[in-house]
Amino acid sequence: MLGSMMRKELLISDLIVHAGKYHADTEIVSRETTGALHSTNWGDVAVRSRKLASALGTLGLSQGDRVATLAWNNHRHLKIWFAVSGSGMVCHTLNPRLAPQQFIFICNDAGDKAMFFDKTFMPLITGTRDHLKTIEHFIFMGPRDAEVLAAIPDVVFYDELIEQGADDYEWPQISEESPCSLCYTSGTTGNPKGVLYNNRSTMIHTFAISLPDGLSLSSEETILPVVPMFHANAWGIPYAAAMTGAKLVMPGPMLDGDSLLGLIDDQKVTLALGVPTIWMMLLAAAKKSGSRMETLRRNVIGGSAAAPSMIATFRNDYGCDTIHAWGMTETSPLGTANRPKGKHADLDADAMALLRLGQGRPPFGIDLRIVDDKGAPLPHDGKAEGALQVRGHWVVDTYFGKEAPATTGDGWFDTGDVSTIDADGFMVIRDRTKDIIKSGGEWISSVDLEGIAVAHPGVAMAAAIGAVHPKWDERPIVIAVKAEGADPSEEEILALYKGKVASWQVPDAVVFTDAIPLNATGKMLKNQLRDQFANTLIERGIRDA
Amino acid sequence: MLGSMMRKELLISDLIVHAGKYHADTEIVSRETTGALHSTNWGDVAVRSRKLASALGTLGLSQGDRVATLAWNNHRHLKIWFAVSGSGMVCHTLNPRLAPQQFIFICNDAGDKAMFFDKTFMPLITGTRDHLKTIEHFIFMGPRDAEVLAAIPDVVFYDELIEQGADDYEWPQISEESPCSLCYTSGTTGNPKGVLYNNRSTMIHTFAISLPDGLSLSSEETILPVVPMFHANAWGIPYAAAMTGAKLVMPGPMLDGDSLLGLIDDQKVTLALGVPTIWMMLLAAAKKSGSRMETLRRNVIGGSAAAPSMIATFRNDYGCDTIHAWGMTETSPLGTANRPKGKHADLDADAMALLRLGQGRPPFGIDLRIVDDKGAPLPHDGKAEGALQVRGHWVVDTYFGKEAPATTGDGWFDTGDVSTIDADGFMVIRDRTKDIIKSGGEWISSVDLEGIAVAHPGVAMAAAIGAVHPKWDERPIVIAVKAEGADPSEEEILALYKGKVASWQVPDAVVFTDAIPLNATGKMLKNQLRDQFANTLIERGIRDA
Ligand SMILES: Nc1ncnc2c1ncn2[C@@H]1O[C@H](COP(=O)(O)OP(=O)(O)OP(=O)(O)O)[C@@H](O)[C@H]1O
Ligand SMILES: Nc1ncnc2c1ncn2[C@@H]1O[C@H](COP(=O)(O)OP(=O)(O)OP(=O)(O)O)[C@@H](O)[C@H]1O
Ligand SMILES: [Mg+2]
Ligand SMILES: [Mg+2]
Repeated sequence: MLGSMMRKELLISDLIVHAGKYHADTEIVSRETTGALHSTNWGDVAVRSRKLASALGTLGLSQGDRVATLAWNNHRHLKIWFAVSGSGMVCHTLNPRLAPQQFIFICNDAGDKAMFFDKTFMPLITGTRDHLKTIEHFIFMGPRDAEVLAAIPDVVFYDELIEQGADDYEWPQISEESPCSLCYTSGTTGNPKGVLYNNRSTMIHTFAISLPDGLSLSSEETILPVVPMFHANAWGIPYAAAMTGAKLVMPGPMLDGDSLLGLIDDQKVTLALGVPTIWMMLLAAAKKSGSRMETLRRNVIGGSAAAPSMIATFRNDYGCDTIHAWGMTETSPLGTANRPKGKHADLDADAMALLRLGQGRPPFGIDLRIVDDKGAPLPHDGKAEGALQVRGHWVVDTYFGKEAPATTGDGWFDTGDVSTIDADGFMVIRDRTKDIIKSGGEWISSVDLEGIAVAHPGVAMAAAIGAVHPKWDERPIVIAVKAEGADPSEEEILALYKGKVASWQVPDAVVFTDAIPLNATGKMLKNQLRDQFANTLIERGIRDA
Repeated sequence: MLGSMMRKELLISDLIVHAGKYHADTEIVSRETTGALHSTNWGDVAVRSRKLASALGTLGLSQGDRVATLAWNNHRHLKIWFAVSGSGMVCHTLNPRLAPQQFIFICNDAGDKAMFFDKTFMPLITGTRDHLKTIEHFIFMGPRDAEVLAAIPDVVFYDELIEQGADDYEWPQISEESPCSLCYTSGTTGNPKGVLYNNRSTMIHTFAISLPDGLSLSSEETILPVVPMFHANAWGIPYAAAMTGAKLVMPGPMLDGDSLLGLIDDQKVTLALGVPTIWMMLLAAAKKSGSRMETLRRNVIGGSAAAPSMIATFRNDYGCDTIHAWGMTETSPLGTANRPKGKHADLDADAMALLRLGQGRPPFGIDLRIVDDKGAPLPHDGKAEGALQVRGHWVVDTYFGKEAPATTGDGWFDTGDVSTIDADGFMVIRDRTKDIIKSGGEWISSVDLEGIAVAHPGVAMAAAIGAVHPKWDERPIVIAVKAEGADPSEEEILALYKGKVASWQVPDAVVFTDAIPLNATGKMLKNQLRDQFANTLIERGIRDA
């Protein structure tokens, strides 16, 4: 049929072209690894990322090559992203908090050819370098530095490298299905797995997360992505900020509560995003300092379940509307965001608060279902609990380097999470399949038990796990870390559960510990806790046997 | 490289699947051609459009066939859209206000195989039927009707046809580049030209218009598209409402001010969209009735320039934030929308009002430039005026049925509009290339002159055109229609221009007339006015010669 629309590929390079042209003077504020604040803008990021892309060519890197980053959220990291992905290479964001063995495994598995790094992570490189088989260039993200040169004699300096680039470099018109970035899962339940994103999946995801019922991003926002760029692409914020022309505030290495609070107040941040542990620190800092965080209208909590008490504090004490979101490395990451619908406008405050506790509903482009043990779909009635499966434009099909698809026979990806879904698509994560506590054949959500424990002001962190029980197979116990200066008793914590859960769901014990092991993205490693505390009840001599 | 994301086509059918699954009980209110109000929801629209798609197959229609609609904005029209485009056919929305000759030309040019119609338009069909060469099926959008049957003996009734459809019909997995709909331009400057949209261009457009800095669409909105579905797809609202789960209020045939006002207040409309003439009628009705239009937070004005006075009235008198938008049939249609940026937050009310008068800036996916007579790009400094050219994911490449591309050698589409663009991408339409008044080599914007005239309460409508002048080639004159009951004088109108435009831009005459000819989308046909009033100054005897 004669007649057609223009056909252009959906490319990440076009994001930075757009931001550079239409939002040139919109600021990008960034904390350097040295602690200093740095300011640039989209116009400059556009120019510099082209120059850097050109310079990467001079190192002999070419399309398809994996280029790793070991870096904080900062302006160089941002330019590297656009330079690498825009020029058709694959930006592999490494989690610097990984144990050296995992780190080595991931670099080799990815076949990284070059690695950009912030100074903080130099020891990780010098300590593992002999095992990093594929890396040809280590590029220090800064100016020439004697200390770095001494440690890594063949190092390349970013600030010198970029000057090799041509000013008239033009982004290649690659296929939208070419890969652009690579990210490994957090390794909470086992070894991290690589997810290879492509331009198309990333671009469609960028549109979807920017929608009003996604994270609602626009040129009126000043966005603070506390979530690291190495954690599922900072949830897509750098791309979406370029698409929508938002101001970005990048926190660099200083992720403590006081530093974040300072950025929020000084930079007039309107939207901040991060995992629950970050918000605990921020709320503590705000309480201490008395800051009202006036400009902060919204924050996004994801990565782990947000405790109800935290959402309430943000809303009631700071007028900050918390968007609880759920996602995975495998889903780019946005799977669901909790945004009420028009029909909820008349809900009273309690009902609305309850609605907002869950992980929300999928934007267009993501489809959800829950299935039983045999893979049969369960009803979306808000009650049935099943294995959560997803499919959509930005969901993994096959893990990096694997032959077998990561999907079910009928094209869904199994998340490893257990959830309910109601008729409106509102999804509530009940637990991970591996973390759910199975007491006498009945399921108890570890997440629910944790939420109740941390609502106690004397509890800083809590994990609920199943401990071995001769009669019930497993019974719930809570491993808790006391808040600084507080000294709650086991009875006090246990008393909290009365009336909040069925009596058979009340934990059998609370064990206080100094610290709960966290993985590289700050999630509690419950498998380690299970190993450590499996016999707690047996050792204590069992009640109600 | 091993590893991949799921690859799904971007299909219109997925919009209705999403809305049907995640927004099943969200209401679609629609005015029937009979005047009665009808209520359904996305769940029902999803079920019925699948059934209808299946039924269309029984008529022998297949993928690629053009299926025309001659219809108001109503629920059957909505289901037809999804049925036709979802099943791989092309939905050709016909403008029923076209002159019969143009109507015949367009139907034959499109090669329509079937035509759905609302009762209102039966006379157009019976009057032209002998000349409609390709149409095999006329489908009346309603139940069996004796009058219709008498006039069109071989008519098919929608309400009977749909029952032939299978309930278990599944949307075909077609290519995202297959065409989905066809719309002809308004014919303001010549013969209408056909633009053939495809699934991909439509879907990317749908994402873009839904963004916060586009039209900001979400499941919290109740949207009244007054702009007809036959006018550049009602600006994409039916698709975007499905994507975002918004409530839709479809006005059917009753587009008068009182009817629209009633819908807004009764249905709690939060966002309404239409051309300037619609808003004039609505504002008049609101003034008369005293309604405050409390729920209407935003309206979108496009299709022709919005007069500054109208934008001010909405904002100041009704607390309704007007989004001035620009687009064309050739741009799906959204080209630009006027949304301030973060940096404008501190503008004072006057500066902000001035900023919001223009047509705004492009969302990601659209790129703009202005060029001079020789096609050389002009600076984006907010001052240089040039021919506006666009390119992007949802811009026409080649008109329907034409061999030659509609684009420049370097891949841009020339809009036929003259504009400025500033450094932030804010674009201001100065005029159409064909309407701009050329006085002694200098350009005068007819749009500016019209905006000043209609700000006078005694002027209902005004067109500025160039009249023949022996010395200056052309001099501006204003053709004006008096408001009901008002009787302004020529001098009174001319006095308005003092201090608002340079003295050489002040019109040489104001001529009052009973009515200004409008085209099928309500735009003033200035070429007809030019024919009629060309010699006004010569006949009057020329001043300042
Ligand atoms: N809002 C949330 N509430 C509860 N859990 C969440 C939320 N957001 C994310 N999660 C959890 O995080 C998981 C995705 O995290 P990520 O992809 O970073 O790696 P991981 O699953 O923790 O690690 P691995 O897959 O290597 O074990 C989800 O499957 C879910 O269990
Ligand atoms: N907000 C606006 N301000 C000024 N003009 C506008 C605005 N929106 C649209 N227009 C005008 O409408 C035109 C697009 O209209 P449309 O595609 O409906 O057909 P048309 O251009 O009127 O008809 P034809 O191309 O057949 O002559 C634009 O090129 C522009 O001239
Ligand atoms: Mg996982
Ligand atoms: Mg036109």
